[in-house]
Amino acid sequence: MKLTILGCYSATPRAFTNPTAQILDIKGNLFLIDCGEGTQVQLRKFKIKFSRIKHVFISHLHGDHFYGLIGLISTFRLLGRDADLHIYGPKGIKEVTLLQLKLGNSYGGYNLIFHELESKVSELIYEDDKVTVHTIPLNHRVYTNGFLFKEKIGDRKLNIDAVLNNDIELCDYRNIKMGKDVENKHGKLIPNTLVSFEPDTPKSYAFCSDTKYTESIIPIIKDATVLYHESTFLNEHAHLCQKTKHSTAKEAATIALKANVKHLILGHFSTRYNSIDYFKEEAETVFDNVLLADDGKEFNF
Amino acid sequence: MKLTILGCYSATPRAFTNPTAQILDIKGNLFLIDCGEGTQVQLRKFKIKFSRIKHVFISHLHGDHFYGLIGLISTFRLLGRDADLHIYGPKGIKEVTLLQLKLGNSYGGYNLIFHELESKVSELIYEDDKVTVHTIPLNHRVYTNGFLFKEKIGDRKLNIDAVLNNDIELCDYRNIKMGKDVENKHGKLIPNTLVSFEPDTPKSYAFCSDTKYTESIIPIIKDATVLYHESTFLNEHAHLCQKTKHSTAKEAATIALKANVKHLILGHFSTRYNSIDYFKEEAETVFDNVLLADDGKEFNF
Repeated sequence: MKLTILGCYSATPRAFTNPTAQILDIKGNLFLIDCGEGTQVQLRKFKIKFSRIKHVFISHLHGDHFYGLIGLISTFRLLGRDADLHIYGPKGIKEVTLLQLKLGNSYGGYNLIFHELESKVSELIYEDDKVTVHTIPLNHRVYTNGFLFKEKIGDRKLNIDAVLNNDIELCDYRNIKMGKDVENKHGKLIPNTLVSFEPDTPKSYAFCSDTKYTESIIPIIKDATVLYHESTFLNEHAHLCQKTKHSTAKEAATIALKANVKHLILGHFSTRYNSIDYFKEEAETVFDNVLLADDGKEFNF
Repeated sequence: MKLTILGCYSATPRAFTNPTAQILDIKGNLFLIDCGEGTQVQLRKFKIKFSRIKHVFISHLHGDHFYGLIGLISTFRLLGRDADLHIYGPKGIKEVTLLQLKLGNSYGGYNLIFHELESKVSELIYEDDKVTVHTIPLNHRVYTNGFLFKEKIGDRKLNIDAVLNNDIELCDYRNIKMGKDVENKHGKLIPNTLVSFEPDTPKSYAFCSDTKYTESIIPIIKDATVLYHESTFLNEHAHLCQKTKHSTAKEAATIALKANVKHLILGHFSTRYNSIDYFKEEAETVFDNVLLADDGKEFNF
């Protein structure tokens, strides 16, 4: 998995900070998560091919997560796209998008397929042969979901030395990867575990923004490889979290600890602080593996 | 008048070109004309105080003229604005704006006052003690208006030498500026024209984008100080103008010539050309005073 942060600052776009948008690349499939104003320019800047984006996940309908979507949809059309685009987001996203296209008389060219969300419990919303996506119901000022991307368990891996030593024919390599026992050249049955290794442990990525501190997400994101959790404020402004339903860096780290995730990425920073390093310092008092998002940063895991 | 071009390129925002938005400063009053995606960032970049913008004019509801409006409205709210914001634009602009705010549960803080346009003839849509604004019905793929900003005629100017020579009292200076004849210290009636000059010639700015070549606008913009006319294409791509209802540089210059304007500013350039100088060269074959818009450029007139 490769995660590219296009924007990770809260509230309003500025000359040098962008609102939330991320590209998650899972084995070559690109998923766009949130789409604040200016996302299409960020995609160009980081040379992400528009045509590779087929699925967009919108957490909630606040402007800093969503106001770039209509522009991206329009640009896809102007560039002659013909592939379907799937959009997953809160109920209402279809009405407002289609209204904007109708007013500009600019619908058409390719299909927009909306998957409107309104469940308050986690649900499977996407599945292909490599990955599943579940919602993570969050607690914010409007209906909001995070998204859990999970790789499916892959094929077993050939133990090539053992395969050669056991005189297995080439045509059976695929069967071994699928976990089957096979007969070798001499008609002898070779147990699968003798000639193969366990598949890679599937990785998972949990995106949780925006939300106040919410322990109900812990069972859903348990043991995730990477958790991106919003930390709009530092602990000194914890009182603002109550009002705005955001989290502190310390709260994000507490969720990471309790959910036993491997890595925590902090993001959705308020621009009131003169350095985002403070967020890392605060989170590290609770949890060890803390990383900071920043516009343009890539994470490989 | 001071015109600041925030963006003047057609179609889609890019890393170094912005869609249409302009600030027109008339004697200290700021008018925002069009508001493509990213306009709020451009306003920040050019240090234009958000609080000074009280009137927004939207020509039409294509994304490159309009998709930045909702973000700007939201940012005004986040920054604690309390002054009214007047929005002039095609019918539908109110519904789509309010729907977006409703979905984000982010309405309130200050008043949005919509002035929806649907007339097909020029009409007066704004007036204060210094300026009037009339629509300029254009011919594009959707309902579109340009806008004509006209200064009102100012006060007459004191001919200070004549005023002193004629022993006029200080309390009558205002009357002279208003065009009245006044009695001097000795009771003698002094004709106004003897002690005052004509007021400055009122200036006017006509914004015409997007539109195909349309001679019906000529009587409306006749003798304007400055005409901004779109020139999406060069003459070599005139066939594209038919289909997309845009203009060539040559057509823009022909309108400028026939309307007897003082200066023509070209803008709304397609990004297919490797230099915008070609637009100036082409227009100058028809009309003398041609200027090129560009993102960040200021024009004082």
